[in-house]
Amino acid sequence: MVAVIHPIPSGTRDVLPDEMRELRAISDALRGVFDREGYGEIATPSLEHESVLARGGAGGPLPAYRVVDDHGAVLALRSDMTVPIARVVATRYATADPPLRFCYFANAFRSVRPHRGQQREFLQAGVELLGAPGAEGTAEALRVLCASLDATGLEHYRVGLGDASLYPALLAEAGVPEEARAGLLHELSTRDFVGLERKLRALSLSGEARERLLTVPQVRGGEEVLGDGGAGLRAVVELLPDDVRARVIFDLGLVRDLAYYTGAVFEVYDPGLGQPIGGGGRYDELLGRFGRPLPAVGFALTVDSLHVALTGEERLS
Amino acid sequence: MVAVIHPIPSGTRDVLPDEMRELRAISDALRGVFDREGYGEIATPSLEHESVLARGGAGGPLPAYRVVDDHGAVLALRSDMTVPIARVVATRYATADPPLRFCYFANAFRSVRPHRGQQREFLQAGVELLGAPGAEGTAEALRVLCASLDATGLEHYRVGLGDASLYPALLAEAGVPEEARAGLLHELSTRDFVGLERKLRALSLSGEARERLLTVPQVRGGEEVLGDGGAGLRAVVELLPDDVRARVIFDLGLVRDLAYYTGAVFEVYDPGLGQPIGGGGRYDELLGRFGRPLPAVGFALTVDSLHVALTGEERLS
Repeated sequence: MVAVIHPIPSGTRDVLPDEMRELRAISDALRGVFDREGYGEIATPSLEHESVLARGGAGGPLPAYRVVDDHGAVLALRSDMTVPIARVVATRYATADPPLRFCYFANAFRSVRPHRGQQREFLQAGVELLGAPGAEGTAEALRVLCASLDATGLEHYRVGLGDASLYPALLAEAGVPEEARAGLLHELSTRDFVGLERKLRALSLSGEARERLLTVPQVRGGEEVLGDGGAGLRAVVELLPDDVRARVIFDLGLVRDLAYYTGAVFEVYDPGLGQPIGGGGRYDELLGRFGRPLPAVGFALTVDSLHVALTGEERLS
Repeated sequence: MVAVIHPIPSGTRDVLPDEMRELRAISDALRGVFDREGYGEIATPSLEHESVLARGGAGGPLPAYRVVDDHGAVLALRSDMTVPIARVVATRYATADPPLRFCYFANAFRSVRPHRGQQREFLQAGVELLGAPGAEGTAEALRVLCASLDATGLEHYRVGLGDASLYPALLAEAGVPEEARAGLLHELSTRDFVGLERKLRALSLSGEARERLLTVPQVRGGEEVLGDGGAGLRAVVELLPDDVRARVIFDLGLVRDLAYYTGAVFEVYDPGLGQPIGGGGRYDELLGRFGRPLPAVGFALTVDSLHVALTGEERLS
């Protein structure tokens, strides 16, 4: 008997019970840690007004799907939960004393290239810590991140730690024109150093400046790679417990593909998977755009990717 | 300090941690029963091709949102999980031996009137039992339904049980023209007996036939209300354990608003809530439209409504 094929949207998939059981176990493990650490779960609508999502800033992921509702409102399926939670904090927690701690388990939707195996709809698990500034807030987020991953049983992961303000500062210092900066940051966010070099060559820069803009973001390692600009990151790791600190690799070229990051940024890697399992960082300006200025930090894990990494570790061991 | 208002789409809402904790507890209780009863959880994309949803049949709920993706495909946010699971069964379980048992926890989207307090996006928890025909399959669904509600702590609910084929048979018997039937069934699905009477008066029927078409669907009660046409429902309740049987009220006018129901249909009522918490029924024709003809039965509960009913029962007690 031949199965009849009924197509599903490009970049989406069905999850059958055996896999679903494992995904649920991962989510339950994460939720246990989020709950223990005092992060209260929030749910928001899958659709947001496009004007709300636009406050997340330009240069972020394109919304995968846009719709007009029967009131003529332009809506889009959310591309993350950080922007919706910023909206909730500004509207429902306008006078609540910080710090505020929230978590979520929610599908996000992005415009991606399905032939690379990226999903247009994916389950994210994450936390947002609002009103906890600087190194202390960032250190808490990293501690909760590692506790969450540990709870799932993942063993060999590392956390890349960088600073979203570092490369923009280098670009300004080298005199790269404003209008060329977004394109360079995009190449960096996709780790396309060939593309970065091509774009740098097209600019009229000194050989020394170009060299610096190409090599600095490729530097990774322990604290010895941090120069004078690394005081902020050094302050973060000094607050980390030893087991978390041992996971950190400094990565001076780390740039996240979401536009709202302002300071420390991080990504989770695992030998069981060829791409990041998730990541996060500081977004100290975003809440102000919604009318409740609070420094903030958070992270999101892609539950599917975490599952693949766990399976990969089992296979490698 | 005044909160800044950032709108959310009409008919949607944010759920904050205190409520979310209670919703999670309800979902966990339901999942525990579904799992114990052998129903494996499935997840499907939020969006489906409109052509797939159309196989669910005309007359069902309108999709709340429709989008065109970058390949030009016309997609819509699913309005239930029964149609997506029928698709999954036809494509991924084309040769699996029945019966098949699946469950889900998934957001569904419908075009509703928000001013009535109905939600456009809502979390449904439900099961589908595929390849279990007739009274035995229906009895299992009712047993799992009541075990699930019991597990959440709901105490005073009742299950209305009717037959989706009953009123269409009465309409045919009375000689109501085909083209008038859908309108009459729609009035009945919304329990609008005034509208039903108005539509019946517009038809040229004998006074006796009109009276019968108006009064029969208002009959509710114990087994004594079942006439000769009620043999199918009587067979179902005879298979039910006493505690489940005690919950059942026969309702000869019960018509669900989804177009694929073919036989027994049911709805859950509770004194804590003015509208059904959920419901289900037999859909013996739907899977055939996807290429794997199997008789089927299922139910869906709206988790939010169940939560309101539980809160209402506490207040009433």
